[in-house]
Amino acid sequence: MAEWIADYRERLPSLPVLPDIAPGDVLSKLPESAPEGPEPLEALLEDLDRLIVPGLTHWNHPGFLAYFSSSSSDPGVLAEFIAAALNVNAMLWKTAPAAAELETRMVEWIRRFTGLPSEFEGVLQDTASSSSFTALLAARERALPGTREQGLRPRWNAEGRPRVYQSDQAHSSIDKAVIAAGIGLEGIRRISSDPQFRMDPEALRRQLSADREAGELPVMICATIGTTSTASVDPVAEIAAISAEHGVWLHVDAAYAGPAASLPELRPLFDGWERADSIVLNPHKWLSTPIDCSVLLFRDSEAVRSSLSSTPAYLETGVEARNLMDYGLPLGRRFRALKLWFLFRRQGAEALRDMLRSHIALAMEFADRIRADDRFELAAPPSLSTVCFAAVPPAAAGERDDTEARNSWNRRLLDMVNRRGRVFLSHTELSGRFVLRLAVGSAWVRAEDIEAAFQELIAAYESLRADEPPTTE
Amino acid sequence: MAEWIADYRERLPSLPVLPDIAPGDVLSKLPESAPEGPEPLEALLEDLDRLIVPGLTHWNHPGFLAYFSSSSSDPGVLAEFIAAALNVNAMLWKTAPAAAELETRMVEWIRRFTGLPSEFEGVLQDTASSSSFTALLAARERALPGTREQGLRPRWNAEGRPRVYQSDQAHSSIDKAVIAAGIGLEGIRRISSDPQFRMDPEALRRQLSADREAGELPVMICATIGTTSTASVDPVAEIAAISAEHGVWLHVDAAYAGPAASLPELRPLFDGWERADSIVLNPHKWLSTPIDCSVLLFRDSEAVRSSLSSTPAYLETGVEARNLMDYGLPLGRRFRALKLWFLFRRQGAEALRDMLRSHIALAMEFADRIRADDRFELAAPPSLSTVCFAAVPPAAAGERDDTEARNSWNRRLLDMVNRRGRVFLSHTELSGRFVLRLAVGSAWVRAEDIEAAFQELIAAYESLRADEPPTTE
Repeated sequence: MAEWIADYRERLPSLPVLPDIAPGDVLSKLPESAPEGPEPLEALLEDLDRLIVPGLTHWNHPGFLAYFSSSSSDPGVLAEFIAAALNVNAMLWKTAPAAAELETRMVEWIRRFTGLPSEFEGVLQDTASSSSFTALLAARERALPGTREQGLRPRWNAEGRPRVYQSDQAHSSIDKAVIAAGIGLEGIRRISSDPQFRMDPEALRRQLSADREAGELPVMICATIGTTSTASVDPVAEIAAISAEHGVWLHVDAAYAGPAASLPELRPLFDGWERADSIVLNPHKWLSTPIDCSVLLFRDSEAVRSSLSSTPAYLETGVEARNLMDYGLPLGRRFRALKLWFLFRRQGAEALRDMLRSHIALAMEFADRIRADDRFELAAPPSLSTVCFAAVPPAAAGERDDTEARNSWNRRLLDMVNRRGRVFLSHTELSGRFVLRLAVGSAWVRAEDIEAAFQELIAAYESLRADEPPTTE
Repeated sequence: MAEWIADYRERLPSLPVLPDIAPGDVLSKLPESAPEGPEPLEALLEDLDRLIVPGLTHWNHPGFLAYFSSSSSDPGVLAEFIAAALNVNAMLWKTAPAAAELETRMVEWIRRFTGLPSEFEGVLQDTASSSSFTALLAARERALPGTREQGLRPRWNAEGRPRVYQSDQAHSSIDKAVIAAGIGLEGIRRISSDPQFRMDPEALRRQLSADREAGELPVMICATIGTTSTASVDPVAEIAAISAEHGVWLHVDAAYAGPAASLPELRPLFDGWERADSIVLNPHKWLSTPIDCSVLLFRDSEAVRSSLSSTPAYLETGVEARNLMDYGLPLGRRFRALKLWFLFRRQGAEALRDMLRSHIALAMEFADRIRADDRFELAAPPSLSTVCFAAVPPAAAGERDDTEARNSWNRRLLDMVNRRGRVFLSHTELSGRFVLRLAVGSAWVRAEDIEAAFQELIAAYESLRADEPPTTE
């Protein structure tokens, strides 16, 4: 099995990042029922090679430059292997004491690695969606005490409603959390962002004041350090001051960018996050940890616990210790701390910081290539390891306003690049523009992959230009 | 690493199931910060043996008879190893097509294995808590349309409130889901159960009618097949008829017992579950699958999707395919389907059914031992692979009513058994009585472990009796 993995790792760079496959292709090759009798391991490995691997988007491929990467370094993979063999469930301290305490310590390692003060403690969750949802429930209970018992309505003014504040660049997981918590999408105040896609703190202040006056019920402000589209950074220090002024829970979504707080030269970007009530950052994004692993840090442990916890008789242990089930929705909990322990000890903090720096350097070099080429333009200021850009279609010089035509050209360009399989880039939408997006973050990425991305873009551009000569009318 | 695991597996039966450890023991031995430089793998494995293993409750130990077991059979462990190496994120079809389609097929295998009709489809979640929460959100949106946009209040009558119906034996995860969804614990109607701990359908019917009349808003009925305390089985067919009558979403929590639907002789227990709107069952409980793996099955896929999904521009793919992120709160998703595929193919459905049967037989033999011994009595009808029982303290013959004294005696007895480390039993509370609980469910359990449990109980009983001779006043 270890051999199979080593072999997969070796041939990975030569596989296409994105599979050439249509919906249903894999499904149709899988039997409709489970077999009655056992099959040999060899048959499984053969099918793995024949059916599954060719149908996967390879997140560990060095050419995976889409979304935010998730990459599994060797220590993380080994830790997952051991965690599956141990198979402990750290729902209660008693049900896996060492796992519970290692989790506490690993959260502390992350806290120190990112320079956060000792007031923060936390837990591991599966994803940022779950972490932010847990934070929202704590914020809801603080703003509208009694919600856990009485539900939302009695806490909801006749005039006003619960409100969640976030920029128009915040991640969709906050929207889902707001839906799930019963607040409803209409409760979201989308604060405008500036031309660099950072929340406008004055707009936030105005909205909060107006809402207060109107009897609305501010529940949470979500600031983002490293937005999903452009990796822009909200002015957290100013937002923290506003949140303190109004006594509103401040949640900082640093799911992607969080690990970069370990770099002293980047600390100014994080100014003010130490005043947050809760922070989420995901080692399974920019810290080489296998999916899933999200760290939820919070300042008021009791606020989180009391907003959601419920202990039936069959889970009472009589032990005075922190039970991790109380800090999130799921009762059962995998032994996620093990992979952070393996990662930090096998690689060391210094090597992790070096990796982050090299990713940022690669992204900035790519941004320079884009800047220097007339066929492309930057679509947002490059930030951290993320670059948003767009092709300038050949005929477009005179029709810069024809957004639809430009968008369609960029869509085709991206599709062509991705179909070729050497690299995988993603896209986003910025002020109505379809924009291409390259984000560096994998433990496996090399300089040659970024160079390949640029060459693939040029090749696709020229191929599209040749196919469709500009219609000059 | 594989060697380490093989070695752990081998010495597991000789380790104490529960560690002899106090809160903070492990934490105090772990450095407060991550190391700056790398450490050799040997150092990690050494610390794993020295610090972690002795501090764990061993869920894979053959003497683990507490709660509901979660055990990781070899195929599941290997699949987790591979899944970590592949590290795909099946949030969108496009981001891991083969993983998304294997998940669809594995849910179908489970559906056929458990004899559910083809109207059901589903997804994998981490835990039953998340599965039931997802079901509740769909039920909430069906009962109170528009909640996802407007939130709960405008949907909440002046006279009435959203109501969730469950027996007094339902799992605490439903309570947490109700809190999280903004309905509030006071929205729960705890329907009384009969002396065998099964929901009283007449009481449910009366409560629903009364609530309808009073303008309350029924959202969901949760029936349980295999309750956590006693593995009792609610009369689902009758409950399904009532739910149809009132048009209320029926959720069936079969997290533990679900796999037993694969046994034809037990199908009567599941009568009516095929009429549910949603069902949860956990392969990571009674189906040898490493934690975490919960199957959420539902009848109206669109109801689940539309109650929660939210797709931002950067996640639009233009591909007509089911995106798994739309069927739960978390965006990122591990490749959980792989372990079900490995499990079913390496073991075969027949062997899995044989395992379930052997667990039930072991539990029933244990129940017979309890029945036959004057020092103990059954506290509930043994059901499936779960036995609830209590010791009858020596002096208690004349003071059967002194519940507190009996409870305290049983607490001490359980504590003594668990401290000895050969087996781990848990407890529950039934009508104010502290009750001991043995549940068989591990892939690794042997007849000798059940025998050992009984012998340990006897030994502890006699030791307690010797320590504290009955005070005859």
